[in-house]
Amino acid sequence: MKIVAAKQILKANDQLADKKRAEFDAQHTLAINVMGSPGAGKTTLLEAIFREIPDSLQPAVIEGDLAEAIDAERIQQLGIPVVQINTEGACHLDANMIAAADEQFSDRDIDLLFIENVGNLVCTAGFDLGEHVRVVLLSVSEGDDKIVKYPTIFQRCDALIVTKSDLQPHMDFNFSRVQADMQRLAPKADIFQVSARTGQGILDVACWIGEHLESRHMSLSS
Amino acid sequence: MKIVAAKQILKANDQLADKKRAEFDAQHTLAINVMGSPGAGKTTLLEAIFREIPDSLQPAVIEGDLAEAIDAERIQQLGIPVVQINTEGACHLDANMIAAADEQFSDRDIDLLFIENVGNLVCTAGFDLGEHVRVVLLSVSEGDDKIVKYPTIFQRCDALIVTKSDLQPHMDFNFSRVQADMQRLAPKADIFQVSARTGQGILDVACWIGEHLESRHMSLSS
Repeated sequence: MKIVAAKQILKANDQLADKKRAEFDAQHTLAINVMGSPGAGKTTLLEAIFREIPDSLQPAVIEGDLAEAIDAERIQQLGIPVVQINTEGACHLDANMIAAADEQFSDRDIDLLFIENVGNLVCTAGFDLGEHVRVVLLSVSEGDDKIVKYPTIFQRCDALIVTKSDLQPHMDFNFSRVQADMQRLAPKADIFQVSARTGQGILDVACWIGEHLESRHMSLSS
Repeated sequence: MKIVAAKQILKANDQLADKKRAEFDAQHTLAINVMGSPGAGKTTLLEAIFREIPDSLQPAVIEGDLAEAIDAERIQQLGIPVVQINTEGACHLDANMIAAADEQFSDRDIDLLFIENVGNLVCTAGFDLGEHVRVVLLSVSEGDDKIVKYPTIFQRCDALIVTKSDLQPHMDFNFSRVQADMQRLAPKADIFQVSARTGQGILDVACWIGEHLESRHMSLSS
């Protein structure tokens, strides 16, 4: 019997993630790790973003779920290449899963790879997937106290995307509190307020992604 | 260096949980494991239930969070005994944490112990805390596809409580789909639709808890 300690697994994951990130760089692929609670609106946000990005860019999606392929089917209906990972109970994706899934795109020239992680505000935070940017979604229906209660994931994100802002009139959600908590915890992270239903803020997020593409010497028109 | 395999940890947890459950039985305490995503409304549901249960019953709460004591402070304001567990990054409570926290109530005669788990629809499912019943919350804002996507936790619950039902007019949430999925996955589980905001269904949940108390030879009036 071979026993492997958790620390070794994390180290092995980080090494594999670095290797995968170098491959993404060589392929001129921007990889985005999309995280959030179950039902935060991750797939719906991706659907909305795909309506905004120019046709010249080729996106792809890796979907992480415990079971089934509900989200992958939604992405496929948009004609976008997608691979579903079923973790079969595991609470997060890891770099090894991404390396295996990304092989499915080997015959394509992917500009933007969205990795939709398992819905989990805790365990996903600890695993580097080889991504270039990390975004965390927080729906207004989850409440404005989540930054303080689940600090690790928010501390390590490049952008916080507050989703379902159309529900704000029906909720006690103080956006200023979220801004103040993020200022303290992750002052460099950008913050967006979006509603996939009304379209509010979606273009801002798409442009932010475009800026990350450009900052990696890949122009939106390439 | 001592290395312990995950299977051994789970087995040790189950043994400790059985011991704790026997202690709860001897104390005539009904222990309820309350699970759900971040922001599903766990603390808000407890606040609403506490308004409905008779004064003759002594409740207590163990709050599980990664950090801070936001939820415990809310419970304390109601004058209800509460212990906050900070997991400091860990994604679920375990029986060992409950045993340590429950010691704080040793000078009291607790009838109902609510254990509010870490907001997590994945990892909490695998750990027995010594509870008698498991309830899982699903807010309508999380979407009606969550039973299928996170089957493990729903499969093992005694009751599904659909929260924030006052938001239903603003959401695409098909309650019949949830009922059908539960019928397939966990046919014995009871299902409730509640809104802590309007009060809908809260008394039903309180009565369901009362029935569990009675079925354990403890009457509501004792």
